[in-house]
This record gives sequence, C-alpha cells and structure tokens, in this order.
Amino acid sequence: MTNHSTICALSTAPGTGGVAVIRISGPEAIALADQVFTPHTEGKTLVAQLPYTLNHGEISIGGKALDDVLVAVFHQPHSYTGEDTVEITCHGSIYIQQEILKQLLDKGCTLARAGEFTQRAFLNGKMDLSQAEAVADLIAATSSSAHRLAMNQMRGGFSAELQRLRAQLLDFVSLIELELDFGEEDVEFANRAKLVQSAGDIQAVITQLVRSFSLGNAIKNGIPVVIVGETNAGKSTLLNHLLNEEKAIVSDVHGTTRDTIEDVINIDGIAFRFIDTAGIRNTGDEIESLGIKRTFQKIDQASIVIWMIDTTHFNKEIEYIADKIIPRTKHKQLIIVFNKIDKISPEEQLILEEEFLPHVPAERIYLSAKYKQNTENLERALLQAARLPDKHENEVVISNLRHYEALRHALEAIGRVAAGLQNKLSGDLLAQDIRECMHYLGEITGEITTDEVLGNIFKNFCIGK
Amino acid sequence: MTNHSTICALSTAPGTGGVAVIRISGPEAIALADQVFTPHTEGKTLVAQLPYTLNHGEISIGGKALDDVLVAVFHQPHSYTGEDTVEITCHGSIYIQQEILKQLLDKGCTLARAGEFTQRAFLNGKMDLSQAEAVADLIAATSSSAHRLAMNQMRGGFSAELQRLRAQLLDFVSLIELELDFGEEDVEFANRAKLVQSAGDIQAVITQLVRSFSLGNAIKNGIPVVIVGETNAGKSTLLNHLLNEEKAIVSDVHGTTRDTIEDVINIDGIAFRFIDTAGIRNTGDEIESLGIKRTFQKIDQASIVIWMIDTTHFNKEIEYIADKIIPRTKHKQLIIVFNKIDKISPEEQLILEEEFLPHVPAERIYLSAKYKQNTENLERALLQAARLPDKHENEVVISNLRHYEALRHALEAIGRVAAGLQNKLSGDLLAQDIRECMHYLGEITGEITTDEVLGNIFKNFCIGK
Repeated sequence: MTNHSTICALSTAPGTGGVAVIRISGPEAIALADQVFTPHTEGKTLVAQLPYTLNHGEISIGGKALDDVLVAVFHQPHSYTGEDTVEITCHGSIYIQQEILKQLLDKGCTLARAGEFTQRAFLNGKMDLSQAEAVADLIAATSSSAHRLAMNQMRGGFSAELQRLRAQLLDFVSLIELELDFGEEDVEFANRAKLVQSAGDIQAVITQLVRSFSLGNAIKNGIPVVIVGETNAGKSTLLNHLLNEEKAIVSDVHGTTRDTIEDVINIDGIAFRFIDTAGIRNTGDEIESLGIKRTFQKIDQASIVIWMIDTTHFNKEIEYIADKIIPRTKHKQLIIVFNKIDKISPEEQLILEEEFLPHVPAERIYLSAKYKQNTENLERALLQAARLPDKHENEVVISNLRHYEALRHALEAIGRVAAGLQNKLSGDLLAQDIRECMHYLGEITGEITTDEVLGNIFKNFCIGK
Repeated sequence: MTNHSTICALSTAPGTGGVAVIRISGPEAIALADQVFTPHTEGKTLVAQLPYTLNHGEISIGGKALDDVLVAVFHQPHSYTGEDTVEITCHGSIYIQQEILKQLLDKGCTLARAGEFTQRAFLNGKMDLSQAEAVADLIAATSSSAHRLAMNQMRGGFSAELQRLRAQLLDFVSLIELELDFGEEDVEFANRAKLVQSAGDIQAVITQLVRSFSLGNAIKNGIPVVIVGETNAGKSTLLNHLLNEEKAIVSDVHGTTRDTIEDVINIDGIAFRFIDTAGIRNTGDEIESLGIKRTFQKIDQASIVIWMIDTTHFNKEIEYIADKIIPRTKHKQLIIVFNKIDKISPEEQLILEEEFLPHVPAERIYLSAKYKQNTENLERALLQAARLPDKHENEVVISNLRHYEALRHALEAIGRVAAGLQNKLSGDLLAQDIRECMHYLGEITGEITTDEVLGNIFKNFCIGK
C-alpha cells in the first residue's frame, strides 16, 4: 500500500493571491525540496530542519532568485499524509506557483492527482475511508450544520460507531465459528438468547444509521423546499428577498461564494435548497397543462412545501390548487404564505385566519414579500419545519450515499442473521451472513476496498488536498 | 505612522482549495488569535509560542470545533509587516475561511484593505515605496522577464540607485547652502567645475533611467506587436497557433491563467502583446475606409510590426500596403511573413526572396501557418526583434509609470541646475532646483508621500497582501 513516488501540487485555491502554498509529500519530499531551496541562514537545510518550524529562504532557477519563501517540514508519520511532507509558502503569483511546480517536477516529483494527499493519508492509516471522505465534505460545506456534520465524521464519530459494531459482530461470529470447529460434538458455546439480543441490537443501530441518511442528506445538500402558487403570487419576490437577506460580511473576499450556493438559502446555519417550479397560471384550460402537473410532482421531492397565495386575488383556482396540493403534503411540512397583506384590511386578514381551510394542518404566515413585512416569520417557520433534532450533533448522522448503500446491505445481512437465529439456521450459514454484514461495514471505513472504489472517491477531491 | 489597529484577511487566492491562509497583523495579533485558538498541546498558547514555529490546534465557535489549524507567529519587527503577525493555515473551505474571519472581527480585528499588509510594511520601514509597488508587480507577473524585473525592484536594486543619487544631491546642496550661510562674504566652498561634473553625472543617470522605461514597460506589459495584412493572409491562424504553442505544463492546476494573459504570448520568458487589427480587404474602394486607416495607426503603438502576405495572392494592393506600412516602421522592427509557402514552388519562393522589396530592411520569414511549417522561425525573429539587451538583468530598469513621471520631473530639475551652473545662477536658486530634484526622487521611494498617493498605489493590490 506504500507509495514510493513523491508528489507535489498547489494546495491553496487556484489563481492569484497574496500567498500560495505548495505541498510536497513522499519519501523524497525533503531531499527534493532541498534541491530547489537556498536557506537565508547558511547551512540551515531542510534535511537539518526541525519539524513544525519555518525556514526562510529562496527558490532560484539557474542561479536567479525566483521567490522568497517560507518552508515547513513534517517528518513521517507526523504529517497529514503520514509521509515526509514539505510545505512551501510563496508569493501568490501564478507564474511563481507554476515555476516552483515545474522545478519540482524537473527534480523528480510527480504532480499529485485530485485528492492524492488524502488518499495517501488513508493508505498510510492516518484516517479511515469515511474520515477521508469527510475531508472533501468539510471543504465543500457551505452551512454550519453541514460543516459540523463533516467535522464530526472527520474526527471519527462515525468510524468509532462502526468499529463498535464490527467488534460486536466479530465476537458473535467467533463464538459461532468455534462451535463449527467442534461441529461433530454438537456443542453450543453461544447462548442463543444472547445472540438474538445481540443481533437485534446491531439491527437497531444500523437501522438508525440508515434512517439518519435523510437528515444527513438534507443537512449536506440543503433541505429541499418547493414554493408553489399562482404566477402572480409573488414567489420570486420572496425568494430574492430571502437570498439577499443572507449576509456574508466578508463577501468582498469571496467573490465566488454566490456561484456555488445559488438558490440555497442559509438560515441560522441550516441550508434550504429551493426547487424551482413554474408558476400556476389561473386560466381554466392551461391549469391542466404538463408544466403544472410537473410542478405538483416536484412537491414529492421536497420536505417543505410553501404554498403562496395572493390574498388580493382569491378565485376558484385556489380550491383547485388546494385539492392538488394538500393530499401531496401528508408526510411533509406545509407552510401557507398569505402574501400582499399590506393590501388587505385587518378585518379581511382575520377572516382569512379563521375561515381559510381551517382543518388543514399547516403553518400560516401573513406577510408582504414586496415590503419585507413579516418575512422573518417565514424564516422562523422554515427553521421549525426543518425539524432538525437538536440532539443530532452528538449522534452519528450519515450523509454519504455510498455509506447509505453499504449500510442497507449490512442491514439486510444482519436481518438474515436475526431471522436465521429464530429459524435455527445452521451455524455456517449464520456465520456467512455475519461475515457479510462485517464486510459491508468494512467497506465504509475502507478496511475492505478496491482501487475502483478509491478512484471514484478521490476523483471528486480538489487537486492539492 | 504607526497603526494601532489589528487587521486580518484571507491571504491566499479566493475560492475553495485544499488549504487557505488567514493573516493577522497588528499590536493585538497574537493576543486576539489566542482568543480563538485552542492548542492541541495544553498550555502551548500563541503568546508563549516561539517565532517561526508552527502550533497545531483548533479554532472553535461557542465550544464547537470549527477546524483543525496550524498557526505560525512572527514577532515584530521580524515579520512581513514589521508588526506582530499570525498566520493561520486552515482547510480551504469558504465556510471555514469566513467563519474564522468573522470570529476575528468579533474579537476586535478589522478587515484589511487591499494591500494593507504591504502598506504597513512600508510605513514600518520594512521596504520603501518602490519595493512595495514591486510586490504587486511580482504577484501580477506572467513572464519570466517581468517576474525578474519585479524581483530586482523588490530586492531594492532601484532603491539603492535612488539612494545613491539622493546622497550625491545632498552633498551638492549642502555645499551650496553652506555658501549661502556665508552669503555676504562671497565665498565659494563648492568648486563650480566639480559641481558641473556632478550635475552632468546625475543627469546622465536619470536620463538612462527615464529611457529604460520603454524597455521596462515592454517587459512588464508585453512587447506590443501588430500583425497587418489582407483579410485572407492567415493572421488569425498564425495567432492561434502561437497562442496554443505556449505550453503550461501545470495548466490543469491553474484554470484561470488563460483569462489573464489573453493575446499575450510568452516566448522564452518574454511576453509579446498582440494588438488586434482589422484585416485589410483588397477591394479598391474599401481599402481607404476608416477601419483600415485605424489599422495603420495602430502600427504606431507597436514596437514590432508583422506584415503578413498571402504568397498565393499577390495583387496591386500589396504595393499600396507597402507604401503605407514601410514609412511607418522606420523606428520599429518589421517582420515580413510570407504565408502559405506550402502552396508555392521553391522556384517561386526564390523569386520572392530575391525580388520582393529588396531594399526594405526587414526580417523575412517564409512559413505555413496552417501546416505549422517554419513558425518557429517567426518566434526566433520575434525574440530578435524584441532586442532586449541581455545586460538589463543587472541594470536598473524602471517599469512603473509613477516612477517614470517622477524621474521626468527630476530630470527637468537637474537640467535647470546644470543650466544654472553654466549661467552662474545664484546659489539660492540652484539650491531650490536641487531640492526639487531630491523631492521627486524621494517621491519614488516614498520618503515624500501623501495619503492620496499611498491610497492610489495600494488600492490596486489584492486583499490579503
């Protein structure tokens, strides 16, 4: 599993900046870096440098100074990758970045593939596979809850849970396999009642993990919200207002933020992902059109449905929409937004509050999107509707589809074990199912893996991580 | 001149990367950073940390871990800015970058303005103004020659030259002012012949600096090249070929390179900036059109003129173009490119070589842009035509318009001194002109400066530098 090559890459974001960091990792990292580095203090080579210290010097090409740099060295195994590592902090010019990398390639480094530093950290046992995956999630996280989820996973919360399960399964299978060794003597080392209990426990834990995926996925990708309503109900006014409310105090530093989180609104650290829908036009024959049907179908993808009503414009279609929407929101959170309340009298609002579909269980918000009146109530309602359990911070929540699939397989296997125990299935068949369950859990942490799986995971990383 | 605020900013390029660096500078830098940092090794606070070492720990918000970070501290005056400085290397997520900055702002930092770190380095005497300006040039440099120019300036080559000149002028004016003190006694401490010599020397040095600007400007912004010729002569084929030839071996890392150097071609470290021109269409009445006239005018902006001729398509307009182009290239480098040589016989080429405008001093290149035949000869011809003196590396070359203007003023002043000496001008008037010359030189290094000048210089820096 060891890598004999020494890799290098730009580790900071691509482009021009004040400074940039180039990372080198591998058995020759320090020796190769020494070939391009001249310390300002004579004799203070990188080979002689203490770990976790900075060395001031210059990189030169053909005797001509290219840049003044600061260099840090980390000795294996006390580095991110677990290998000897050098980090060069240079001026953030693209030209300088390229020239330093070129020089390193000339000396024998190879350019790191996407995620290769983290892949090496995994291969060198610095982290398991789910922790490695969390590194990419951490870098991509745009909300505090998604960030915390990735952070917990990176710090090994999930890994510990899986270790615990695998240890239980190993005990389990050991006892059964011991029986098999004494097969002809028909002994039962394993108390069957205890085994049933144990299988049930494991089943319950994996079930909970599998269930946590919808929460984890919502946190990671944003809670899906759909806004439905007539075209003139003010949907886009509301959406734009919500998007603009989100303040990025350091937005001038990060011109690119908006691009990546378009249509995702961050409220108190929770990301809400708005699914685009066509407005429902209230003309008799068009209301049945394919586009409208598709809008209704999109409700199925959402966890939260905002039904927006123009309070100045009640008509027959409202009933029609109600008939279509309400049955579709049975297992979802419905928020009815009465817009343009600036245009109706308090008496009219009172009538609405009392008489509009009184039996439909929905949060009701009265606001004016145009005049930004009561929109904070909607934000509050969204947070409530998100219903993220407060306790999830200390619980293990999974957010990765690969983990979800492996856990589903593990759940099936442990289910067969539980059923087999009840049906007095033979020990060798039980053992096979337990081993299968362990196999799937091992896939998550990377104890069992293939090059193809690794390739798929790390290709989504950025270069330099 | 001291700054009492503590500033912070992202110092690496904006966007998502493997890692990012946040820089904090100012009297409270270390204490403020300590408030958000928890070392992994107990008691290893930043205040207690040795300079030029790295401290591993975490940044947390409200008790919740935000990120694992490495922190370097630099004590004043041994830092870039000359102030206490902290550099936090965190994961390169935009969310993490923003949250760390937010936390620092909450604790009392202010967000650094563009170039403010470098401005503080200047104000704290870590570098003079021309060196500070070179930092921005260094970061923006996209060719090796522009990079070297900036590097030399940053390392103080130009500053030393200016210091030398100012010292000479100071000696000069001191003697004359001494005479003024003894004014009524009519003594002459300063040997007038020596003063004439000295003024002449200074004049010569400043003249050379002023002259070097066209070279410096060409190096910094690229040598201006214009390609003229008929529409079908193959200009864009050639240009595209030259652009594609330029290999960036690490281009996958730097998706943004191409954007910034569009139409600038790098040959052996020299940047050539191609000025766009409309093709000259060989239809009688249109040839006189405004567009064509403008093309001819663009020749005036270029140092090198490539006249491209379709060898398969000789006609009367060639003579017309020759009449227009040749007089305009008197003080420029003219390269005549005969394109589509794959379509003519060697005999035809021989006739061209011998008979086409034999008395016009021009480099002649026979190539096929389409089949990439002999295009390397053109690159060689461009390098030759650039005629960058080899020795310029050890000479001081100026590339900054502000410096150029100040030197022009200084040259006028020293010119008046030289003339005044010959005309036996009174000492007080001579002293005034010498002081003016010193003033302009001092403007370059920043010994004499205003907030407005500083504002104009540093606003063009990136944030975080």
